[in-house]
Amino acid sequence: MSSAPQIPAPIVAPPGRSRRAGAAKTSPVRDLLALTERPEVISFAGGLPAPELFDLDGIRAAFDEALQAPGVLQYSTSEGSAALREEVARRYTADGLDTSASDLIITTGSQQGLGLLATSLVDPGDTILVEEPCYLAALQTFALAGARVVGVPYDGDALDLEALDRLASAHSAKFFYTVPTFQNPTGRTHDLVARKQIAEIALRRGLRIIEDEPYRQLRYSGDALPSLATLAPDHVLSLGSFSKVLAPGLRIGWIRTTPDIRPTATIAKQAADLHTSTIDQAAAARYLASGRGDLALDRIRSSYAERRDAMLSGLPSALPAGSTWSRPDGGMFVWARLPEAMDATQLLTKALAHDVAFVPGAPFFAGPADPRTLRLSFTTYAPDRIRTGLSRLGAASGAAG
Amino acid sequence: MSSAPQIPAPIVAPPGRSRRAGAAKTSPVRDLLALTERPEVISFAGGLPAPELFDLDGIRAAFDEALQAPGVLQYSTSEGSAALREEVARRYTADGLDTSASDLIITTGSQQGLGLLATSLVDPGDTILVEEPCYLAALQTFALAGARVVGVPYDGDALDLEALDRLASAHSAKFFYTVPTFQNPTGRTHDLVARKQIAEIALRRGLRIIEDEPYRQLRYSGDALPSLATLAPDHVLSLGSFSKVLAPGLRIGWIRTTPDIRPTATIAKQAADLHTSTIDQAAAARYLASGRGDLALDRIRSSYAERRDAMLSGLPSALPAGSTWSRPDGGMFVWARLPEAMDATQLLTKALAHDVAFVPGAPFFAGPADPRTLRLSFTTYAPDRIRTGLSRLGAASGAAG
Repeated sequence: MSSAPQIPAPIVAPPGRSRRAGAAKTSPVRDLLALTERPEVISFAGGLPAPELFDLDGIRAAFDEALQAPGVLQYSTSEGSAALREEVARRYTADGLDTSASDLIITTGSQQGLGLLATSLVDPGDTILVEEPCYLAALQTFALAGARVVGVPYDGDALDLEALDRLASAHSAKFFYTVPTFQNPTGRTHDLVARKQIAEIALRRGLRIIEDEPYRQLRYSGDALPSLATLAPDHVLSLGSFSKVLAPGLRIGWIRTTPDIRPTATIAKQAADLHTSTIDQAAAARYLASGRGDLALDRIRSSYAERRDAMLSGLPSALPAGSTWSRPDGGMFVWARLPEAMDATQLLTKALAHDVAFVPGAPFFAGPADPRTLRLSFTTYAPDRIRTGLSRLGAASGAAG
Repeated sequence: MSSAPQIPAPIVAPPGRSRRAGAAKTSPVRDLLALTERPEVISFAGGLPAPELFDLDGIRAAFDEALQAPGVLQYSTSEGSAALREEVARRYTADGLDTSASDLIITTGSQQGLGLLATSLVDPGDTILVEEPCYLAALQTFALAGARVVGVPYDGDALDLEALDRLASAHSAKFFYTVPTFQNPTGRTHDLVARKQIAEIALRRGLRIIEDEPYRQLRYSGDALPSLATLAPDHVLSLGSFSKVLAPGLRIGWIRTTPDIRPTATIAKQAADLHTSTIDQAAAARYLASGRGDLALDRIRSSYAERRDAMLSGLPSALPAGSTWSRPDGGMFVWARLPEAMDATQLLTKALAHDVAFVPGAPFFAGPADPRTLRLSFTTYAPDRIRTGLSRLGAASGAAG
């Protein structure tokens, strides 16, 4: 190369990371979880299912069946396994939402579904709306996409629908992201009246909605509610997952997409990872077809209901007088609020000294945070361990005295 | 809601897809593959490994072992399984590149690694450099990231290094993306002199390099060459994959990252899909630890070498007189160029009428395409079938006459 220098040139460092990557922070929950990894800590912080309730034998049998022919080792289509999509479509249709396999794109967990829809719908600088507070990893994904995230406030336990209507109009929002059933972090559920009004706003304003339903199957009391997609079919994209009912380690979720977004989301999936593991998809399809999943779900639901009840009956002597908390009909989380002038992060420091943990609510807010809030997960431990953890929390908070 | 209208409002459609999604097209190879799905077609179009050469029994046994304890069903860390990263790090170190597990992030195939690095490094409008022609799915990923993609031309069979030096300087490029060994689509390999000069440019210009090495283990002749990361350790990010040597359906790849990019790439991975399937990672780690992978790789290499030889000896009577083609020491592809005034897409139409297929080269170009080029994959079929396919191609092209 004739232009090569004759004396060694100084070494120049490569350029830095992108601006959008600089805007995303590592999950504060993740950083906090590091503090709770001491084995003696009873942690209500993580959103972890209880792995011992999953059907390990059934899942192992499904993998063994799936791995009988070499085709399962090969590349496959970006949309995902036809057999698996048929199983998912059948469940939607039985749940009141007519769905065919071609409406579905299999994703590597519903977290990937969020990212694919952000890629498909959001250019940097676009505004999107979220519930305030909101699922933390969704906030992170939207930040990486360069979105301007605006929180829609709650009015008590109900979403402020006038605010949703006003913000949708003011910001030409690309979409409103909601976890309508047993929300993370609050455990809140939009009731039937709220669902109809959200759908009405979507239709009238041309507002697209992403409804994220990882907890829909985890109902322990109360009646099932229609998904938003049944109320505004052309305006609602739905995300689903087997993480809470089959196994999170499998990383299988899906997008139920509207026809206008299907080609774009499929290209985004292809660019993201070509397709989700052929082996995992084949095993999941076989497991679902075996019917063992429904039995496992019954067992999971009845165990989680006992765990929720243990937490709700233990909270009065665990949190300071004047605290309030949600009483969810399902899901994994209770959301609590400490009395005036108290701070959940300060309480966490005391709690860790008593070997018990939770997550302060502040990181879940898109806008100004409420420092009195906290999230407690009730799914990881059996009731006795929950009671032990809550009595430690009572000792830390002074409520037990 | 007091502001709800008393008469039904017209339904307003939701907004459209993002501009960046509109800039990405579905893979033309994917569209062409649809034409080759008739079972009677012998297709040299796809880049598909031969699934019957993979070790189905060994992989099934590894899944069975991995699925003995419920922990494998749980969420895990974004960086990936420690056991699997240890196995990968050991292989790098044995290959001359000192690597520890903490240098690695497990990804859902190396395609995801590309996307995570694009997210970590590229803001919309940034320029990046690629080899011309370039791996198609990389072009698509960079387009979705909003990058301006500039091709570095070849000078015969060697990359034009003066052009690389000039373009790196002119564009303040965020990185140069290269498949240094048995490139897709050309089968070309940067020789030792070229590798040293690429590293020298990187150090002198502060140019970051992404080296994508899915085919490195698929060498059938010639001597192994050092990876670019050994020559410019702080400037080179490496991508690897088990797709070509263990099974593509498993979707397991990795990024070997430099310390400056590790936190950013980890956050991007967390936002992309939280983590790669815990089950697949555990099975891959057990399979690699068993030593069966090395035996399978020997079998794959010796079969592919025969297939390459069958293709190279059949090409003179398959392509029109005056055609030229690469003679790769490994990988999966031969890159050919038709005589002047011929067009590969027109030849494909004739070929399909004779039940044989390949991929025209045009879609692989970032800039102006060379319509005379085409790519032939030699890994999918046994030698007899390759000879049959090539004699059909000879009939289509007139070369056999």
